[in-house]
Amino acid sequence: MYIEKGSQWNAAELETAAHEHLISPAEEMAKLGTSGGRPMFASADGVYIWDNRGHKLLDGPGGMWCTQVGYNSKPIADAISAQALRLCYNSPWYSLSGPAAELSKRISDFAPGDLNHVFFTTGGSSAVDSALRFVQFYNNVLGRPTKKAIICRIDGYHGSTHLTAACSGRAGNRPNFDLALENVSFISAPNVFRRPKGMTEAQFLDHLIAGFEERVNTLGPDNVGAFLAEPLLASGGILIPPKGYHARILEICRKHDILYISDEVVTGFGRCGHWFASEEVFDIVPDIITFAKGVTSGYVPLGGFVISDKVLSRVSGENAKGSYYTNGYTYSGHPVSCAAALANIEVFERDNILEHVRDIAPYFQEKLQELKTLPLVGDVRGTGLLGCVECVTNPEDTEASEFDKQVALRVDRYCYEGGLIVRPIGSMCVLSPALIITKEQIDEMVRILRDSIVKVQDELKAEGLWG
Amino acid sequence: MYIEKGSQWNAAELETAAHEHLISPAEEMAKLGTSGGRPMFASADGVYIWDNRGHKLLDGPGGMWCTQVGYNSKPIADAISAQALRLCYNSPWYSLSGPAAELSKRISDFAPGDLNHVFFTTGGSSAVDSALRFVQFYNNVLGRPTKKAIICRIDGYHGSTHLTAACSGRAGNRPNFDLALENVSFISAPNVFRRPKGMTEAQFLDHLIAGFEERVNTLGPDNVGAFLAEPLLASGGILIPPKGYHARILEICRKHDILYISDEVVTGFGRCGHWFASEEVFDIVPDIITFAKGVTSGYVPLGGFVISDKVLSRVSGENAKGSYYTNGYTYSGHPVSCAAALANIEVFERDNILEHVRDIAPYFQEKLQELKTLPLVGDVRGTGLLGCVECVTNPEDTEASEFDKQVALRVDRYCYEGGLIVRPIGSMCVLSPALIITKEQIDEMVRILRDSIVKVQDELKAEGLWG
Repeated sequence: MYIEKGSQWNAAELETAAHEHLISPAEEMAKLGTSGGRPMFASADGVYIWDNRGHKLLDGPGGMWCTQVGYNSKPIADAISAQALRLCYNSPWYSLSGPAAELSKRISDFAPGDLNHVFFTTGGSSAVDSALRFVQFYNNVLGRPTKKAIICRIDGYHGSTHLTAACSGRAGNRPNFDLALENVSFISAPNVFRRPKGMTEAQFLDHLIAGFEERVNTLGPDNVGAFLAEPLLASGGILIPPKGYHARILEICRKHDILYISDEVVTGFGRCGHWFASEEVFDIVPDIITFAKGVTSGYVPLGGFVISDKVLSRVSGENAKGSYYTNGYTYSGHPVSCAAALANIEVFERDNILEHVRDIAPYFQEKLQELKTLPLVGDVRGTGLLGCVECVTNPEDTEASEFDKQVALRVDRYCYEGGLIVRPIGSMCVLSPALIITKEQIDEMVRILRDSIVKVQDELKAEGLWG
Repeated sequence: MYIEKGSQWNAAELETAAHEHLISPAEEMAKLGTSGGRPMFASADGVYIWDNRGHKLLDGPGGMWCTQVGYNSKPIADAISAQALRLCYNSPWYSLSGPAAELSKRISDFAPGDLNHVFFTTGGSSAVDSALRFVQFYNNVLGRPTKKAIICRIDGYHGSTHLTAACSGRAGNRPNFDLALENVSFISAPNVFRRPKGMTEAQFLDHLIAGFEERVNTLGPDNVGAFLAEPLLASGGILIPPKGYHARILEICRKHDILYISDEVVTGFGRCGHWFASEEVFDIVPDIITFAKGVTSGYVPLGGFVISDKVLSRVSGENAKGSYYTNGYTYSGHPVSCAAALANIEVFERDNILEHVRDIAPYFQEKLQELKTLPLVGDVRGTGLLGCVECVTNPEDTEASEFDKQVALRVDRYCYEGGLIVRPIGSMCVLSPALIITKEQIDEMVRILRDSIVKVQDELKAEGLWG
């Protein structure tokens, strides 16, 4: 029985079930029934994970940018189990639960400025979807029905619901879906590495800001509801904007009464050494911050947004007679999810994890930078415990080639064999390990990555494909 | 510390935190800061729940149609905790986990016909959103870019993402959001109780089917991608269509190559005495079934859809070169959520819960029908462990009046005092208790509801408002 011992199925049976019955995210439909070569993971501890052949791997991406306190945390497992026995469910539509209440206060305390009210959802996609539905609600209640355009960025990622996918500008995610929504408008990404040739970083910043301002003016300020942006573009390839970017955009937003939504699904909960990165790393207090992933270290689904009192006051109290924010989920503020988050936060505090990230991040970045000397490496960038090593076979290319992507896949395969998970995003090896990683484990990670890149370099030369 | 003992905050502190920091689903914005009178629940066991004043209540709605095996199930709590320690997270975008694999096979076995592949999400909204995104993907890959309209019903409920909210036809949920999407088309609900006067049930059925067929023809069959429907409209007020409704609509769908999506978020996992209700209760094998809620008995967020091999085969394998279904969530197939579902299914099997529902549902429906003799009760309807008692003060009204809704709220308040949660939906007291409910507990539930309705009747008469 599953209850007593977990699955009684062996590895082969489980793989067969997955091949025959599971559709995975981003499934390559031509390969349905083969899992597209996805490995199956069986167990994990700290920063390590074991596949079902018993192969041990250091988890480079940290799950999906989310395993902050690491795998196998007993305090979180205990808190989940205790809450499941105490009150496993509460309907947020007509009653409250203690864990959601307590967590809403804790997150308000972490959030900058007057961001003091929390709305809970089930993950990052629903967090952003709900924040965008708030923009609709807000401008309709304020009697500004046209003020609805959402400006977002090429290469940004904000989720997988119809609306949030429409706001996500990564080209690879868009084919075969109907994502060209009238109210969604894309500006270019602050990609410093791929900036137009001959432009200084300062000029590039001016260029980006001018692009945003021009878009607002083209659309008409009365038609623009929100700017939606990750502090740094995560799955877009760890694109860190030039210093001052967010503050200058925020200034323009304030001038035109445009809501600034900072999507901290990846950067929140310690990834950059702070609960949130918006103010402490990127110098802005936005109107809304979305969060998910790290809030529970990935142990149970949870997401949400935290919003400014000033914004909220315009559509609440006396100003909101008869207006209901009729948005929400069966699992909004789920007590088990919120209990996991509260325990997760206590582990952060008990183990001084934010301080640890601030201490160790410079070492992580420095070790990654050392890879820049490898001929195949075109760029290394990052901040906090987020890093990206970009493979570039031809420095003259203005964007990553198909060949670069194949090269990254080769690097990935050698890393896997060597004991490191690197989920290549296009041509980029992106790393975001659990926040508890040690110096020794960083050394191990970078060593395996270096060895793999060197192997691929040698291989490409031997095959006459490069070098 | 939360980790050791759960919250150290007392009830008043938790309520204050909720009032000051939490935005609840469907928050009445004029009352933000007061929780709009929502009680706070503290603990629960079986079919009962206790509020933070220690008041014991029988949970009439079963959470939010989801606490199938009841609160405080140790096997589920243990399975959750064990999985959280074993492998608390797996990124479904590039690897597989055992619990998701095993659950995909179990759900495929439960689903009717050739529905054999499962895509996991985080709840009902994302399940329907993903199914609708599949409709886009499907028709784009098949080279039919115009075949995208979704036909759904007034009073239907399908979720709270932008797209699923747009497909939900409950009038109360729509103000202040921009939900009039071009590709969403509503037909009338199969509301037998409120059917046009003078029409027999058979005539009404013909009328509904003609309405659907006419809509398909008006839009043009080549422009219609899917029909989206709950087998019975749940939050629309337990509207059970006339016998034959779904089969006749499915026939029209087949004729025009329109996908039939059966939204079983409420009816799935035992609510009607079967794993799914589509075939065994409503005589159809749809193309896609969406599920959530009961799949984990509400213990952890989880949702998804199960899809027909025949449909899938048209856009997979040889037919799908280069096509990626680039939809999915960080928490798709979450191992802890799937472990909860697997344990939940075993509790169903161990305790013969499906059989129990089939045994006890007639008694539940019979006891509810006895309330029909009360003058304030206009209609009583239901199936399985879903029931609705509709208050009607004026039988001449063609729809529920504001006064009827106030009356239902009064009934709700007396029920709460008497020890029963009844979440009134407009003028309707809807009941969907945990599936483990006993005859004695059904008696208790119906007794409190009867006493409360009688009290309100007497009160309204004394106030000269009715009767």
